[in-house]
Amino acid sequence: MTVGLAAEVSAASPDAVRVRELANELFDALRSATGDGVGITRASYGKGESAALDIVDAKARALGLPTERDAGANLVVTFAGSEPQLPFLACGSHLDSVPQGGNFDGAAGVVAGLAVLAGFKAEGFRPRRTLKLFGLRGEESARFGKAYLGSSALFGRLSAADLAVMAADSKVSLGDCMREVGVDVDRVKNGQPLLDPKSVAAWVELHIEQGPVLVARQLPVGIVTGIRGNLRHRVVECVGSAGHSGAVPRWLRHDAMFATAELITHLDHHWRTLLERGRDLVITTGVVTTDPHEHAIARIPGMLRFSFELRSQSKETLEAFYDLFLSECRLIGEERGVEFRLDRRLESSPATMDPAWVARLKQAARSLGLPDEEIPSGAGHDAAVFANEGIPSAMIFVRNEHGSHNPDESMAIEDFVAGVAIMRSALKEAAA
Amino acid sequence: MTVGLAAEVSAASPDAVRVRELANELFDALRSATGDGVGITRASYGKGESAALDIVDAKARALGLPTERDAGANLVVTFAGSEPQLPFLACGSHLDSVPQGGNFDGAAGVVAGLAVLAGFKAEGFRPRRTLKLFGLRGEESARFGKAYLGSSALFGRLSAADLAVMAADSKVSLGDCMREVGVDVDRVKNGQPLLDPKSVAAWVELHIEQGPVLVARQLPVGIVTGIRGNLRHRVVECVGSAGHSGAVPRWLRHDAMFATAELITHLDHHWRTLLERGRDLVITTGVVTTDPHEHAIARIPGMLRFSFELRSQSKETLEAFYDLFLSECRLIGEERGVEFRLDRRLESSPATMDPAWVARLKQAARSLGLPDEEIPSGAGHDAAVFANEGIPSAMIFVRNEHGSHNPDESMAIEDFVAGVAIMRSALKEAAA
Repeated sequence: MTVGLAAEVSAASPDAVRVRELANELFDALRSATGDGVGITRASYGKGESAALDIVDAKARALGLPTERDAGANLVVTFAGSEPQLPFLACGSHLDSVPQGGNFDGAAGVVAGLAVLAGFKAEGFRPRRTLKLFGLRGEESARFGKAYLGSSALFGRLSAADLAVMAADSKVSLGDCMREVGVDVDRVKNGQPLLDPKSVAAWVELHIEQGPVLVARQLPVGIVTGIRGNLRHRVVECVGSAGHSGAVPRWLRHDAMFATAELITHLDHHWRTLLERGRDLVITTGVVTTDPHEHAIARIPGMLRFSFELRSQSKETLEAFYDLFLSECRLIGEERGVEFRLDRRLESSPATMDPAWVARLKQAARSLGLPDEEIPSGAGHDAAVFANEGIPSAMIFVRNEHGSHNPDESMAIEDFVAGVAIMRSALKEAAA
Repeated sequence: MTVGLAAEVSAASPDAVRVRELANELFDALRSATGDGVGITRASYGKGESAALDIVDAKARALGLPTERDAGANLVVTFAGSEPQLPFLACGSHLDSVPQGGNFDGAAGVVAGLAVLAGFKAEGFRPRRTLKLFGLRGEESARFGKAYLGSSALFGRLSAADLAVMAADSKVSLGDCMREVGVDVDRVKNGQPLLDPKSVAAWVELHIEQGPVLVARQLPVGIVTGIRGNLRHRVVECVGSAGHSGAVPRWLRHDAMFATAELITHLDHHWRTLLERGRDLVITTGVVTTDPHEHAIARIPGMLRFSFELRSQSKETLEAFYDLFLSECRLIGEERGVEFRLDRRLESSPATMDPAWVARLKQAARSLGLPDEEIPSGAGHDAAVFANEGIPSAMIFVRNEHGSHNPDESMAIEDFVAGVAIMRSALKEAAA
């Protein structure tokens, strides 16, 4: 990958050195402030997330860039253009994480944005359009079941029901957690946008790839074409009847675990069939548990709770598979004398990245001597929310080993430098 | 059931009145001392269990019966015979319970024994053989994974490995919990019997039925013919790889929940096949959980823990199905790139009740105008341990609605009185 590389991405260039130093400093600071002994934990609208915002905020100010917190309590760093009445260019990503997650998921995009803005300032670039870096809150679904909370709040897309959801790790509602960190919850509750989509000319987000594709294909970066949507239930409760394991014969059992095992095995078969037909789909039951207050080895589990998630690039595939899920719940429920109780259905729409921006990022990559490979995003990103508000949106993926949502995330800083260079080149062109 | 009933079991007889009063008093006292708000909790070698022993102990002494704690810290109430050198007749059951369990599972047999001894004393009966009532500890497996701890300790059948097992509800070992309540742990650890099986002429245990058979057949009592054995793993760990749910496609997943669901569904099919061939078997996975420290809706579960239990009246069926289980673990493990890790295998042998005692109990039932129906025990009981030590053992089941190991156990006191009358009649004949 070194032949034909432009100066900005060659390891010894002053730009590359500056980006690498900033990245190492910020990633180290984030890791040491939010490490949990196993991985890092920056709970959405919680302490670790706020600490991460503070670290980036302080660094931005130290670099001479003005910062503020918007009405959604997100960090906003501004690099003013000469024509501030023009819609601004936005970049960034989120600063929260799953529990015991990795240091790069989300944070890489914020550090990248700061590196770009700091670079512009250092070289005395005077753009027409203002550029803004967003350090968003609440992108991960681990704490409140729903993803994209920070970006959804920005556009007035959260409901009172969303705000009433209790945190998985404490008995506090999303609304209260938001208020605690300074969100204007009344506006959010009333569905008022905190940011006018028309004021945003584009959203550009750098993110580590969370799947294995770039590693397998030996590509340092990829240009994202679209983002999967999802359908979710935070909690499905399979309710049967508890009983003494030795005393109730098979035909009198209403075993919540055997019923759920059959449900999942059926869905797995349907999944395989759909994949063979070329449909895009993944199914996950990430949280599974019998009731710790009453489960025992010698007790037929009368209740099992599990989370349920479907993801696809096609809304039609999501809905069709969801119908299949409901129908399997009914059939197995009847056959086994159990009931599957579903909590509120949560959904995020699939999104398409802006073709002009995809072309611009690919062109920027080529001009830097980097590959311009297209890649779909299996995971969700705030960029999907911006795109679905009609804002031209684009993403750069950076190669990352061992996936994400775990402590073993591994992004080489040279790959990150390459991603930043693409982003910088494209934003410079659009802002000029 | 009222036609032809003997005086002892007709509701207005002095015997029936005395048994009913004693039972109501003791069951009320037990419930109020060990209620947990939902059901009752008398943890094996824990506080609730000790409280239950104290309640029965105090009542026995109030009735003029001498009491002691044996080297296993069990309650022993003695009604001395005129020929104390003869092997004694033992009766009783256990006083521990599962968490949020019912008031009768175990306690009914201890109250029944006290009612019998108190009745003998009240009427001035002078037996040749001594009678002893045991209020045993540690029958339930909920806290330490293994059942029959109290009776196994009595006969030197616990190992150092058993004593090292940690409680499910605290970080204390079985050995330490035993020492805490006064067990002579050094003798137990060395496998020394605390009670010589040759000194015991018989073990007679009354217990609520934990299945639905007596209710369905409208029988107040049943005479037990045999007791199922079991094979158990307290914890099977399915180890796959965690990953971002959106980013890892199906063919790269090592999902611990989907693998376990498939395992259980396969075992369920095999189970159905064996039942169709007339084999006796039940399979239970009572405790199932992803890792609460790292599970999340958007994370492929890299690990799932579950308990595994097989029960059968046939040792051969247990071993054959266990082999099938191991082979399914291997096959699914290979296919899905996961590993099923098994902790120590625990086992309890099936047991046959003594034919002469079964005949004696049936004869006693008939002479009281009660049904003498035979019934196998699907659940395990301390009687299995006594039987497997060569002690002639027998059990009376009392009808009970809603099963056991839950707060809804429901035993009518009239049915209990009938069971006590059978026990009393048979013990009187054997002791005379």
